[in-house]
Amino acid sequence: MATTTYDKEITALLVIDPYNDFISEGGKIWSRIRGVAEANGCVPHMLQVLNAARNGGFRVFYAMHRRYRPGDYETWKYIAPIQKVAWQRKPFEYGTWGGEIRPELAPKPGEIVAGEHWCSSGFANTDLDLLLKKHGIHQLIVIGLLAHTCIEATVRYAAELGYEVTVVKDATADYSDKEMNAALDINIPNYANAIVTTKEVVGSIASL
Amino acid sequence: MATTTYDKEITALLVIDPYNDFISEGGKIWSRIRGVAEANGCVPHMLQVLNAARNGGFRVFYAMHRRYRPGDYETWKYIAPIQKVAWQRKPFEYGTWGGEIRPELAPKPGEIVAGEHWCSSGFANTDLDLLLKKHGIHQLIVIGLLAHTCIEATVRYAAELGYEVTVVKDATADYSDKEMNAALDINIPNYANAIVTTKEVVGSIASL
Amino acid sequence: MATTTYDKEITALLVIDPYNDFISEGGKIWSRIRGVAEANGCVPHMLQVLNAARNGGFRVFYAMHRRYRPGDYETWKYIAPIQKVAWQRKPFEYGTWGGEIRPELAPKPGEIVAGEHWCSSGFANTDLDLLLKKHGIHQLIVIGLLAHTCIEATVRYAAELGYEVTVVKDATADYSDKEMNAALDINIPNYANAIVTTKEVVGSIASL
Amino acid sequence: MATTTYDKEITALLVIDPYNDFISEGGKIWSRIRGVAEANGCVPHMLQVLNAARNGGFRVFYAMHRRYRPGDYETWKYIAPIQKVAWQRKPFEYGTWGGEIRPELAPKPGEIVAGEHWCSSGFANTDLDLLLKKHGIHQLIVIGLLAHTCIEATVRYAAELGYEVTVVKDATADYSDKEMNAALDINIPNYANAIVTTKEVVGSIASL
Repeated sequence: MATTTYDKEITALLVIDPYNDFISEGGKIWSRIRGVAEANGCVPHMLQVLNAARNGGFRVFYAMHRRYRPGDYETWKYIAPIQKVAWQRKPFEYGTWGGEIRPELAPKPGEIVAGEHWCSSGFANTDLDLLLKKHGIHQLIVIGLLAHTCIEATVRYAAELGYEVTVVKDATADYSDKEMNAALDINIPNYANAIVTTKEVVGSIASL
Repeated sequence: MATTTYDKEITALLVIDPYNDFISEGGKIWSRIRGVAEANGCVPHMLQVLNAARNGGFRVFYAMHRRYRPGDYETWKYIAPIQKVAWQRKPFEYGTWGGEIRPELAPKPGEIVAGEHWCSSGFANTDLDLLLKKHGIHQLIVIGLLAHTCIEATVRYAAELGYEVTVVKDATADYSDKEMNAALDINIPNYANAIVTTKEVVGSIASL
Repeated sequence: MATTTYDKEITALLVIDPYNDFISEGGKIWSRIRGVAEANGCVPHMLQVLNAARNGGFRVFYAMHRRYRPGDYETWKYIAPIQKVAWQRKPFEYGTWGGEIRPELAPKPGEIVAGEHWCSSGFANTDLDLLLKKHGIHQLIVIGLLAHTCIEATVRYAAELGYEVTVVKDATADYSDKEMNAALDINIPNYANAIVTTKEVVGSIASL
Repeated sequence: MATTTYDKEITALLVIDPYNDFISEGGKIWSRIRGVAEANGCVPHMLQVLNAARNGGFRVFYAMHRRYRPGDYETWKYIAPIQKVAWQRKPFEYGTWGGEIRPELAPKPGEIVAGEHWCSSGFANTDLDLLLKKHGIHQLIVIGLLAHTCIEATVRYAAELGYEVTVVKDATADYSDKEMNAALDINIPNYANAIVTTKEVVGSIASL
């Protein structure tokens, strides 16, 4: 894929669900994604991209999944399978360590954390689209978890809503290669304008 | 207006912005709306409608304005006048008494507080529409503040999104009669299916 | 109000509901708005603004109300008052002269007509927001009909969605001064960054 | 998967992109999906499900892709890969046979065709959500094309927006098994409450 260049006036980094439960030792879901995440260098790559974006003067946004709170689902008449799992397993539980952002990836002052999303897309039922528009953003560089759920959902929504997207393929992870490939090789190429490595995107940013 | 009946399977009460800053003695905006609010019996009527809804077994939702936090607006390239005012005056400041719900109107367990809205509509850039759908709600009874900004905006959005709306005209308030009339007499009749008094809506609910 | 300047890279003209039924002799609603429209110079002003925008190289978008088609409402379980009126009076009927754009205001090649809206906001349930984003637009100059319904609704939505808006106050009309004033003097000032005359906006554009 | 039952008061059939270009001999994309489509019995199954829904008194909705029109994309500053392909290949060209619904699947009076979508989700930037709400619909049975693009996108959006979804897995098709499996086996199970065969869904409907 050809080198992509980025204009920081219209491009932002979007960090998706960097919760301890996903990517820290002892997190509820970490054991299930550790194999792919470590093979992919997911966490160190996320940090590299984040640092490069900050150093390059790019705006940083966070899209965070609903932190589980008691009573979230008991009264719903209609519920999706992925929400039933959230109800049962209580990922990112509010007020617990698992529901906190992994410390070295935490937002710095001036970085923007959008409202929590209830399903998989960081845009659905949140202020993410608004906050991007308020800052004049039209292009997103996306990192985070999981490839075939929240990353793919957010990328699909981004494309539907008019954004151009770059996905950093070694700054994400999934349960197994099967889900990673479905997201990165089959579906996301239809919606993301570029799928690059950390090395490529850091190079592009640094050369600005 | 003819008596309206409500089916609690599809109807919910929506309480908009019952912050101390709006409706409690000492609140930042209270002095500006006190005249209309007291003439209208706004606060006691809000409480009556809330109690009637609870006693009648209706679901209760809250739509809350963004509580001001430092840094909210400094980086925005585009901003609406009403947001400039929010930036300047810091209503509903996060972590302060003014940004808390007036105690006797506070949500009880099982009642649902939607994500905060940045402008005037409780639906825009929030999960309010989602949470209403998850509970099978198609009709709303609306109370709260201010008539010509958040109430009218939320009613307009509700109509655009497919809901039927009842506005309780003596359970709201505004800066002066001019704004109240613009909302209640001129605009909202196009979008709300009923505009009623507290006495009427409480009677409708109690007769179920 | 201070002079506003416009950058055509991010600003577009938005023409709302320039149907014959609204603004042409013989249109279904013309007789009801004629008094205000003629006093205001609504139609010639709309044309002046449109010509200035075209000459200035600004993009032009159209937001059009649902043209009535038989069967539109018969099966709805929930309906807003303004939609009941549309059902009854059949404004902008599809396939009729009243449902056509007044000829001298018709879109030229390259101008963009968004999907039809069902209630009052040009943004609700349409591709208007998407098409504006696809063209990098963040600011809108708004003209058209009616002030307190579609204009105000579209301006409110625009503000909620992150746009900055200029309303041209003598390029709109309404049933009477009461509705015009509610829109232009009471409500829209909260959501539009500027409310100007045709002369002012044409001057701003021409001076670029 | 256990038998699912459907209540026609809240359940509708959603037919996605049944264009000649997709599923009729001679259509622009038919040759690329014919292998999977014929192996899966896609077209006859779509017809069976449609007939069962009609006979069972279920509402039928159509979600249709933007029919290509000259000038659609030339002025866009931002474009997704799947839209670049649409620009290049002109699928479902407006005014041509390929852009018509395959005749035996065409809507009957009273069935509802939502606004056209520009990317993959039938909900994005259209009135589909509104029209479903206006009819009290909370559950969808989904058939149509293509599994990993418009079907998956629409199912994901439906889940994000609060709907429960059944996907009929032999009433869809794709370029190859790889894309079909990514959609039906890996991604959609997170968002659809049931993935069934035509035989199963027709049986469920017929037994009502």
